[in-house]
Amino acid sequence: MKRTQFSDQPCAVARAMDIVGELWSFMIIRNVFLGVRRFEGLRQNLGISRKVLAERLDLLVARGILERRPYQDRPPRHEYRLTPMGVDLFPVLIALSRWGNRWLAGGAGAPIEFVHRKCGQVTQARVVCDTCGEDLGAHNVRPQLGAGGELAYVEAIEQAGGGKPVFLRPARA
Amino acid sequence: MKRTQFSDQPCAVARAMDIVGELWSFMIIRNVFLGVRRFEGLRQNLGISRKVLAERLDLLVARGILERRPYQDRPPRHEYRLTPMGVDLFPVLIALSRWGNRWLAGGAGAPIEFVHRKCGQVTQARVVCDTCGEDLGAHNVRPQLGAGGELAYVEAIEQAGGGKPVFLRPARA
Repeated sequence: MKRTQFSDQPCAVARAMDIVGELWSFMIIRNVFLGVRRFEGLRQNLGISRKVLAERLDLLVARGILERRPYQDRPPRHEYRLTPMGVDLFPVLIALSRWGNRWLAGGAGAPIEFVHRKCGQVTQARVVCDTCGEDLGAHNVRPQLGAGGELAYVEAIEQAGGGKPVFLRPARA
Repeated sequence: MKRTQFSDQPCAVARAMDIVGELWSFMIIRNVFLGVRRFEGLRQNLGISRKVLAERLDLLVARGILERRPYQDRPPRHEYRLTPMGVDLFPVLIALSRWGNRWLAGGAGAPIEFVHRKCGQVTQARVVCDTCGEDLGAHNVRPQLGAGGELAYVEAIEQAGGGKPVFLRPARA
C-alpha cells in the first residue's frame, strides 16, 4: 500500500512519523534496542512476514536509522545496529513506554519497566525543559515558527483551527 | 487494510503503538494539540479523505484519546478534544519533534519550535530520570520484567536476540 509522504512537510513530527510512524518500524527499532539484531530473530519475535520485514529493514537502513554490520563471512551474514540517529530515538521510545504503562497496563502494572543504571531505581521518563528543568506539557509550551519553517504552513494550521492565533512569530532581523 | 493487533502484547510500546502508531492518528492528535478540533478543519489541513478521517477519529474516541464535545445545537455539531489520556501524549509528541528537528531538519533549522511559557525560552525536550534527573538513554537504562509482565515474553525476546540476558528479573515475594 502506498503511503502518503509526509517527509516534505515543514513539521518535525510529520517528518519523524514518516520514518517511524508505522507499527512495524517502531517495533523493529524496539527489538533492536532489546538486542534482537538479526533477520531471523526479528522475524520470529515479531511474527512478521519475510517480505514485510525485509522492506521495513531496507527502509530503516535507507533513512539512516539502522546500519548493516557483517558478523560472518562464509556465508556472508549481517546484523542490524542502530546508528547514532537511531540510538537517539530511545528517549521517544521510553516516553511512549511510560505513557503505555500509565494508561494501558490495566490493573496488572507495567509489563516491562526500566532501571536507571546510575541511580539504580526503576525510572519513569520525565520530559523536561532543557533550560529550567520543569516538566513540559501541552499547557505550558507554545509553538513558534522556527527558522526552518514557513509562514504559510503555520497560517494554514491556524486557519484550519478557526483563525485563532496559535503560533508565536519571532521578530526577525 | 486489517492491521495486526498489538493490544494484547505484554509490552507498553506495542500497546501504545497499537493506538498511536499510525501516521494519521498521530497527525490528527498533533493537529488537535495545535487547535484544529473540527472535522472540516482536520480534513482540510491533513488533506485526508472523509472516510479515513472519520474512521481514525472514531478509533481515537473509542480508545479514549479524544472525546466529542458539542459546540452547536442546530444543526448539532461537535468538535474533538483531547482527554487526559490524550493530553498526556504531549511529552511523546515533543520528544518526537526534538528528534525530527535534530535529524531531519537539514540546514534550515527547526520548522516549528516550542517556547516554554514559564521560563520564556525556546525549549528542547530532555527525557530524564524522575529519581535523579539525569538524561535517559539506551546505554544507561536496563529493561526489567515488571509486575504486569510475563516471563515467557521477555525470554522469547532474549532467545530471538541470541540468548543473551537483557532483562533484569526482580526478586519476587
